Amino acid sequence: MATDQVPPVSHEPLDEMPTVEPEAAADPVDDADVPADKGYRQPEVDVEALRTLLDGRYREVRDLVRANLAEHAQILVDEEQLTTSDFRERVRDVVVTMAGTGQTGMGFPEAYGGGGDIGASIAAFETLAFGDLSVLVKVGVQFGLFGGAILQLGTRLHHDAHLADLVAGRTMGCFAMTESGHGSNVQALGTVATYDTAAQEFVITTPDDASRKDYIGNAAAHAELAVVFAQLEIGQGAEAERHGVHAFVVPIREDGRVRSGVRIEDCGPKMGLNGVDNGRLWFDGVRVPRTALLNQFAEVTPEGRYLSPIDNPDKRFFTMLGTLVQGRVCVGGAGINAAKVALTIATRYAVRRRQFEAVSPDEEQVLLDYGMHQRRLLPLIARTYALHFAQEVVAGQLHDVFSGPGPTAEGNDEHARRVLESRAAGTKVLGTWHATRTIQECREACGGAGYLSENRFAALKADTDVFTTFEGDNHVLLQLVAKGLLTDYAGEFEEMDQLGMARFVAGLAVETVVERTAVHKLVQSVRDLLPGGDRWDQEAGLLDPNYQLAMLRFREEHMIGGVARRLKRGIDQGMNPGAVFSRVQDHVIAAARAHTERLVLEAFVHKAADLPDGDLKVALNLLCDLHALTTIEADRAWFMEHGRLSSTRSKAISREINALCRKVRPLAVDLVDAFGVPEEMLRSPDLLGWTDTGPVR
Amino acid sequence: MATDQVPPVSHEPLDEMPTVEPEAAADPVDDADVPADKGYRQPEVDVEALRTLLDGRYREVRDLVRANLAEHAQILVDEEQLTTSDFRERVRDVVVTMAGTGQTGMGFPEAYGGGGDIGASIAAFETLAFGDLSVLVKVGVQFGLFGGAILQLGTRLHHDAHLADLVAGRTMGCFAMTESGHGSNVQALGTVATYDTAAQEFVITTPDDASRKDYIGNAAAHAELAVVFAQLEIGQGAEAERHGVHAFVVPIREDGRVRSGVRIEDCGPKMGLNGVDNGRLWFDGVRVPRTALLNQFAEVTPEGRYLSPIDNPDKRFFTMLGTLVQGRVCVGGAGINAAKVALTIATRYAVRRRQFEAVSPDEEQVLLDYGMHQRRLLPLIARTYALHFAQEVVAGQLHDVFSGPGPTAEGNDEHARRVLESRAAGTKVLGTWHATRTIQECREACGGAGYLSENRFAALKADTDVFTTFEGDNHVLLQLVAKGLLTDYAGEFEEMDQLGMARFVAGLAVETVVERTAVHKLVQSVRDLLPGGDRWDQEAGLLDPNYQLAMLRFREEHMIGGVARRLKRGIDQGMNPGAVFSRVQDHVIAAARAHTERLVLEAFVHKAADLPDGDLKVALNLLCDLHALTTIEADRAWFMEHGRLSSTRSKAISREINALCRKVRPLAVDLVDAFGVPEEMLRSPDLLGWTDTGPVR
Repeated sequence: MATDQVPPVSHEPLDEMPTVEPEAAADPVDDADVPADKGYRQPEVDVEALRTLLDGRYREVRDLVRANLAEHAQILVDEEQLTTSDFRERVRDVVVTMAGTGQTGMGFPEAYGGGGDIGASIAAFETLAFGDLSVLVKVGVQFGLFGGAILQLGTRLHHDAHLADLVAGRTMGCFAMTESGHGSNVQALGTVATYDTAAQEFVITTPDDASRKDYIGNAAAHAELAVVFAQLEIGQGAEAERHGVHAFVVPIREDGRVRSGVRIEDCGPKMGLNGVDNGRLWFDGVRVPRTALLNQFAEVTPEGRYLSPIDNPDKRFFTMLGTLVQGRVCVGGAGINAAKVALTIATRYAVRRRQFEAVSPDEEQVLLDYGMHQRRLLPLIARTYALHFAQEVVAGQLHDVFSGPGPTAEGNDEHARRVLESRAAGTKVLGTWHATRTIQECREACGGAGYLSENRFAALKADTDVFTTFEGDNHVLLQLVAKGLLTDYAGEFEEMDQLGMARFVAGLAVETVVERTAVHKLVQSVRDLLPGGDRWDQEAGLLDPNYQLAMLRFREEHMIGGVARRLKRGIDQGMNPGAVFSRVQDHVIAAARAHTERLVLEAFVHKAADLPDGDLKVALNLLCDLHALTTIEADRAWFMEHGRLSSTRSKAISREINALCRKVRPLAVDLVDAFGVPEEMLRSPDLLGWTDTGPVR
Repeated sequence: MATDQVPPVSHEPLDEMPTVEPEAAADPVDDADVPADKGYRQPEVDVEALRTLLDGRYREVRDLVRANLAEHAQILVDEEQLTTSDFRERVRDVVVTMAGTGQTGMGFPEAYGGGGDIGASIAAFETLAFGDLSVLVKVGVQFGLFGGAILQLGTRLHHDAHLADLVAGRTMGCFAMTESGHGSNVQALGTVATYDTAAQEFVITTPDDASRKDYIGNAAAHAELAVVFAQLEIGQGAEAERHGVHAFVVPIREDGRVRSGVRIEDCGPKMGLNGVDNGRLWFDGVRVPRTALLNQFAEVTPEGRYLSPIDNPDKRFFTMLGTLVQGRVCVGGAGINAAKVALTIATRYAVRRRQFEAVSPDEEQVLLDYGMHQRRLLPLIARTYALHFAQEVVAGQLHDVFSGPGPTAEGNDEHARRVLESRAAGTKVLGTWHATRTIQECREACGGAGYLSENRFAALKADTDVFTTFEGDNHVLLQLVAKGLLTDYAGEFEEMDQLGMARFVAGLAVETVVERTAVHKLVQSVRDLLPGGDRWDQEAGLLDPNYQLAMLRFREEHMIGGVARRLKRGIDQGMNPGAVFSRVQDHVIAAARAHTERLVLEAFVHKAADLPDGDLKVALNLLCDLHALTTIEADRAWFMEHGRLSSTRSKAISREINALCRKVRPLAVDLVDAFGVPEEMLRSPDLLGWTDTGPVR
């Protein structure tokens, strides 16, 4: 628990002693040997049924990936033993072999050897996160970023030229967007593609070192092609006209040798993911034909006229970028699944490992019977389930949006796309932060053994670390989410930078901002379901999902209103909009997190509610309660500050969480086994007590 | 920020709109362009003077280490490039070379080539954490653990035989305490040393795999000697009598070859610290002479009689262990200094790097001018200062206790030693968790660049990860701290395991437990200094250090009382003491953290108060306020739950923190430069904008 916050503890005030103890009935010590609820019966978990629920409609796809992972399990050891350059080759070979099974091409049209099912491609990618993550990221670069850009930004010409080869892994490519000096601000990148009308070619140039392409996966060793993002310029010198960022297919190697005019530098050793060859690229007047422009959203005619169905350059830029949303959905899912590996190891270890003589002087107690250890691991298991179901929702939305007609000039599905982008961003943020936190907690919960490479945490921690940064820095993404909330994904959305957003919001009444949000109606509807009228926050049961949802919805609505008010007031007072934004930034980010937390809880509540009655439903409801209450507990200060939680009720929540942990404790191993992480991916022979015939449970 | 807690934001409730705004004057947006305090003048920081303050009495020692680090800076690159076995040799060579400068032997008696100054040895070790941490840990193993055990547990015979060689690095040794199956529960270890009266030898045996020595630094490749902890047994079979854990000097290699009867296995690759050769040891009837027993606290006569000046075996065990407290003090200091390296890089980067057009459309804003970025980094700088001064206190206490006469049968300094052990444990916990959290936050604050090895975060993160576990798992150490608090370091202290503690506390009145704690008087005394009488928590100024201290002291006292009450009630109700402890464990740990947080704040407040008036004092007071208020803010839910913080005041604290961040912002680079991390240890040429002539500031 690497935070300076003292964890909440449940106890009564000092001055309530000693004879009359009104809270005594609810005190966790008092209810020690009786079940908390009359009639409560401990559910049994059918691991297979739960796994079927988790795997969902893509069970077969996930099992194919599991089998492929098991077949190549040796790569987890190779990661420790091979030199960097040998390991890169090994990763490439595994990726190409996996491509041969159809695993990596599921999102591409069948005509080019793909599977024609976007949802399946997400499921396959997520599942790959159980194994070596260099393989995962290499797959993401080749098929998601490079292949996705050709597919989404290119047209028939490009598809015919490249898709079949890249789907089969015959042509490797890279995705050259990020620049050293511009990071998350892609719209400001510096690489230029100037159209030479005479030659009917684009000339790609890196004007300065701040504009070199940086951290580009596949660039240092393997890519023959690059999708290069550059400022499209037509005309020369003072005449030159710029049309914003566009993507071009640029050969960077021929027969394994770097092409003339291209300079490539290796990024060198990294914290993790050393099986991926990240590099830097400079272009010195590299010429490509006019058709190298990926022209789904814009075209340059041979004579140098610029044409686009989308007039507004900002809107065009964000429409293009929006087609690449799949990458964010994939990374979020990968983070969640990497966390599952860590939790599986730490939980199985915690029911084997004994420490100190706590219950009797003769026998040491297993770790998971300690209250503290339950508090460390069980809420993380609950949150992993919550995020899993939230990820299922966003992956489903992605599938639906991208299986329909593409974006058009009229933008008939524009609103749905903006909502999807926002949800993908938020889920990516929570999923990747969850991975960082969970892997760290699990490592510490396995003590010194967790530090040995054979126990997986070394690679999990090092490899996932950058997930919070790539495919969009988490803080930048939360600002994107907030912008969508505050502007209701308005048509103006794409044109606005932070200054624009501040001005836009300042121009509306605060009530207007709040009323336009999706959460506004939800708050009212859920309150109507709760007992107590205006006192719903005091009367409703803590385990009532409507109460839990009402709390998160209230927080979200309140925070959005607060941001709108502060932006408005600052600008009304004549402050610089940028300075106003900077001051309100923490509030903006908090509102975006609150929004995403609400979506995650809703996904879990709906999933559990839809189950038929039975033990599985009881077990998932326990987990859902545990997740909901730990989420409220983590921000209980805010709820108290805003009059939605009395101190008595706040303490009752902490007690209830402890009671829920004791109920979930006997289910813990089944809950992690249902994740279906292949045994070969766990390694950890000492931690799990492997014998010659397999792991001891 | 890898946590699911939504960060606190300062704003007013939604329903306070629109005309009357009572909080308007304090709102952060409203006070935008005027200084918050009339007459406030931004201080200037004299970096050299601040560094002198931080370095304290051991400036020269620290500068020697800085020079040695700079001389061997190449090792930071070697860590990435050499094979594991070559890197181990390289680390060994650097350690031995450093030993030649006197840097590593400062804690040993001058008669054996040491420096005779324990405080100096701590200062040297802490400073070493600016560099490669395999070197640091190898130094810790050789001179701290191995050398420290010979010095503290051995007598003249052992000193004469080993100290001169080990201080010079001619003899390498290891410290074989931890066993695979027993972890933090050293008293339960399984290795046996049976005295053979006929041969006047001890026979060392590993009875089972759970009792193999594990994670032993220096064991896999370099150690010739091991200090082995084993159950001392006299007599054979049914006659055998055990006297508890003792330490023995055991040769494990001769001329580089493993000695007969000893089996050594390499622990293999680790998450980090791969320059340290960790191994596992098994002993199969290995014979050592009777004099191999390190006999400072116990002796076996040639004819097999056991003698010890300390009758009680538990007390003897804890007295022996207590002499090794220096290791914990060292690790805590190392964690704090590793955090300084990360903060130096991230802060300097944050004033160079521009991102998005926040303030004006023409220029991107530097990261550290964003409110969120200030919130990420500046409280961590403040906390690093707080922990630095807290570490200075505990290192000073260690120096004083260990520079006096050693522990005696009468135990005349026993109480001081127990208090030191508790403080060392608590500071180690906070210092190492701070390192984990700070390095992670700084990595994320440097974006993708933070992921490249040349930018230091990869090694910092991987190498420090195990700090939270070794020299005592942080949660186990906090339980030790709590035991001391609850029993007032009573004579019974050493004899008690968790069951014993629960029973002991249950036998006292709760008031007795609370009144015996050191904090009890402090709470009263500080309240007398505050305005408002019983309403001190509402009337005192947020920036009054007495208010800040009163809050932390109140929390500590209240938590200790709560733990005592819950233990008492559970046992009074006839529950199993172990089960009671398990239930109360989170509360026990929270109380220990609260205690240590109070000590840390006191150290900072006292340091700042002792400074002469001037800009340096103003600057340190800003930092101290920032640290104190973020500490209260992090646990503001608890204070609200316990009636010590109104929701209005809680929000005012968050606003005040934002205001303090804006005041500290212009000082940030000076504050990290004063840490005095050698430029060669920062690397990060791109992040810091190095040119051929050095870093750009």
